[in-house]
Amino acid sequence: MPILIDIRKLTIIGKLIQHGAKNVTDSLSTMANIQADIQIKSLSFVEPSDIPQEIGEGDHYHANIRLTEPPYGVFLMTFGDRTAHEIAGHMTGQPVEDGNLNQMHESALQEMCNILTSGFIDGIANTLGTTINMHTPELERSDAEVIADQTLSHIHSDSLSIVLDSVVDLRDEDTEFQLRIFLVPDPGAFVNLIDKLDIEEIREIENVAAAHDGDRAF
Amino acid sequence: MPILIDIRKLTIIGKLIQHGAKNVTDSLSTMANIQADIQIKSLSFVEPSDIPQEIGEGDHYHANIRLTEPPYGVFLMTFGDRTAHEIAGHMTGQPVEDGNLNQMHESALQEMCNILTSGFIDGIANTLGTTINMHTPELERSDAEVIADQTLSHIHSDSLSIVLDSVVDLRDEDTEFQLRIFLVPDPGAFVNLIDKLDIEEIREIENVAAAHDGDRAF
Repeated sequence: MPILIDIRKLTIIGKLIQHGAKNVTDSLSTMANIQADIQIKSLSFVEPSDIPQEIGEGDHYHANIRLTEPPYGVFLMTFGDRTAHEIAGHMTGQPVEDGNLNQMHESALQEMCNILTSGFIDGIANTLGTTINMHTPELERSDAEVIADQTLSHIHSDSLSIVLDSVVDLRDEDTEFQLRIFLVPDPGAFVNLIDKLDIEEIREIENVAAAHDGDRAF
Repeated sequence: MPILIDIRKLTIIGKLIQHGAKNVTDSLSTMANIQADIQIKSLSFVEPSDIPQEIGEGDHYHANIRLTEPPYGVFLMTFGDRTAHEIAGHMTGQPVEDGNLNQMHESALQEMCNILTSGFIDGIANTLGTTINMHTPELERSDAEVIADQTLSHIHSDSLSIVLDSVVDLRDEDTEFQLRIFLVPDPGAFVNLIDKLDIEEIREIENVAAAHDGDRAF
């Protein structure tokens, strides 16, 4: 059965993602005192069966949460060893030696995953005018196929996955973390949420937010 | 009136764009003997009224064609002075001095626009199983607002624009050209074309193409 969306509402998906990223920026600043810009480098749509290929070969760090409220589905974040070592080193002030993370490194990575995940989901939820409760994601390291198996076993094969390549760019430092984010919502619930949104309403939210931030001259 | 598309068919938009980019790679090789990889760095959806902002401030080179066959609408390509000078210098073997293009440079740029535009549109058309006849795009240089005015005056304000940031990366050379592509199809005609496509059929096209290219082991 087709799950229909007005094609002109696709602009809203972009807005949702921008707002998610903006909220991550704010969370990093308030929760971890990290001044950073988040850039979404690419957005694409793939089928869930293509996710292992999108994650890439070899082992990756990953954290996922299953959303128990609309839009349901799964939020999955993956990153490679290099980014893991950079994050852990930056957050603890102790460089990672010989690729071995100590307990402080692991806690820091876990903390970063929590901030990124909750920041992103909360940002999307705010824009949708709702809240999305969630558990804390658990950070693991596995092969792409294993990640997909574990994470997506309950997802319908005809779901849609939104794939985001994002870069967390630390201000005043020559460091950036590269992350890949997969949003695999329940297609029906997702369309239902987007249908309720109007692009003009979103612009108003943005204008209010910008006025509060003092980014614009009013 | 809503123009509805099955949300799971959004994966097809990504495929269309990949095939367009792949065809540009082939065209550059056969028509200009340039070995290059085209990467689509980002895909987003915006409203036509946001296009000037997406093009960016100041003057830009631009070439556009109006499609007189489905999906109708407009194909617009923009790039900045730096990319223009790099393309012109690379194609003529004569560096651009003091930012002034000579006639050879201008012809080379025009030629590059023709290859990129026809390559991209043909690639999309092949995947759609159709042909899209087009005129030769004329290269100009104007301010973003002027470009949008000229190009989009006949476009409905509630159309959807697909924005692609793409990079033409020359193999064996440390040079890349950054281009921005705007596809502003007629929403109804676009949905109609995509509705006829099946993701499995596209996979078959890809498999056949890959077999011909010898990229896969059969």
